[in-house]
Amino acid sequence: MELVPIGVIHSPYQERGQAPRQGRLSDNEITLEIHPQFAAALKNITRCSHLIVLYWGDRANRETLQSRTPFSEVPVGVFTSRSPNRPNPIAVCVADLIRQEENCLIVRGVDALDGSPLLDIKAYAPAIDCIPQATNQHIPDTLDGIAQGKSLHDR
Amino acid sequence: MELVPIGVIHSPYQERGQAPRQGRLSDNEITLEIHPQFAAALKNITRCSHLIVLYWGDRANRETLQSRTPFSEVPVGVFTSRSPNRPNPIAVCVADLIRQEENCLIVRGVDALDGSPLLDIKAYAPAIDCIPQATNQHIPDTLDGIAQGKSLHDR
Repeated sequence: MELVPIGVIHSPYQERGQAPRQGRLSDNEITLEIHPQFAAALKNITRCSHLIVLYWGDRANRETLQSRTPFSEVPVGVFTSRSPNRPNPIAVCVADLIRQEENCLIVRGVDALDGSPLLDIKAYAPAIDCIPQATNQHIPDTLDGIAQGKSLHDR
Repeated sequence: MELVPIGVIHSPYQERGQAPRQGRLSDNEITLEIHPQFAAALKNITRCSHLIVLYWGDRANRETLQSRTPFSEVPVGVFTSRSPNRPNPIAVCVADLIRQEENCLIVRGVDALDGSPLLDIKAYAPAIDCIPQATNQHIPDTLDGIAQGKSLHDR
């Protein structure tokens, strides 16, 4: 299972501490540069207001199985969290597509460090991706709560 | 960028034609078997009602850049669609977590073929993953529309 980079992400975040906790917490414009040999796969992309963006966390720790989060004093499993550190560091962001400039997509909502390899782009579809009734006793249910890193429980 | 299987998916779908068009169109229970060496990463997983499940489409065609979809007579780019065929065949499903049985998670909403390698599991968080106002001129905005494969446009 070997991945090919379909492009590269240009972002203002050079180091982990500069990136927002979640992409949707920042209004920064990010550029997804798609390599020319994959540009044909962008056909009709502007039909989508939002995209699911998958990128490779090339600076992640793949050995981490549990970690503290901003919301918990005690470590939780990485599969229970959104930690960038995990056995396969494939990050998933829902991005707002602002505009297309040839083989580049200008988006908001992506928390990738500058230079991260781009892996995949998919149309976001509310009917299949939006589950408003989902509950989560671990991650706050508002962007403000996530930004503040308020603890939900330490039990 | 090499992936490790964190587990394997057991589903009733042996061939492409048997799987639902989208995981959320079926109530079938699917088993995510996590390999023992990664089981520690499941700690507290039952705090989540829904999970983002990433798996490897090991029977996908990685050369496909455009394809017809159930919703269009003319081919669209695979980055504009949810086609399983794409340069990096990483499938993303939002699954309902029904229960945990040791290192297995019983879920609904996953369209994987039986035996597909499991790549990652993340907590689904409505605050960051649910964008009800997203628009998409390509994929129908209801599950019924997706099931029926109704054409949205052919322009």
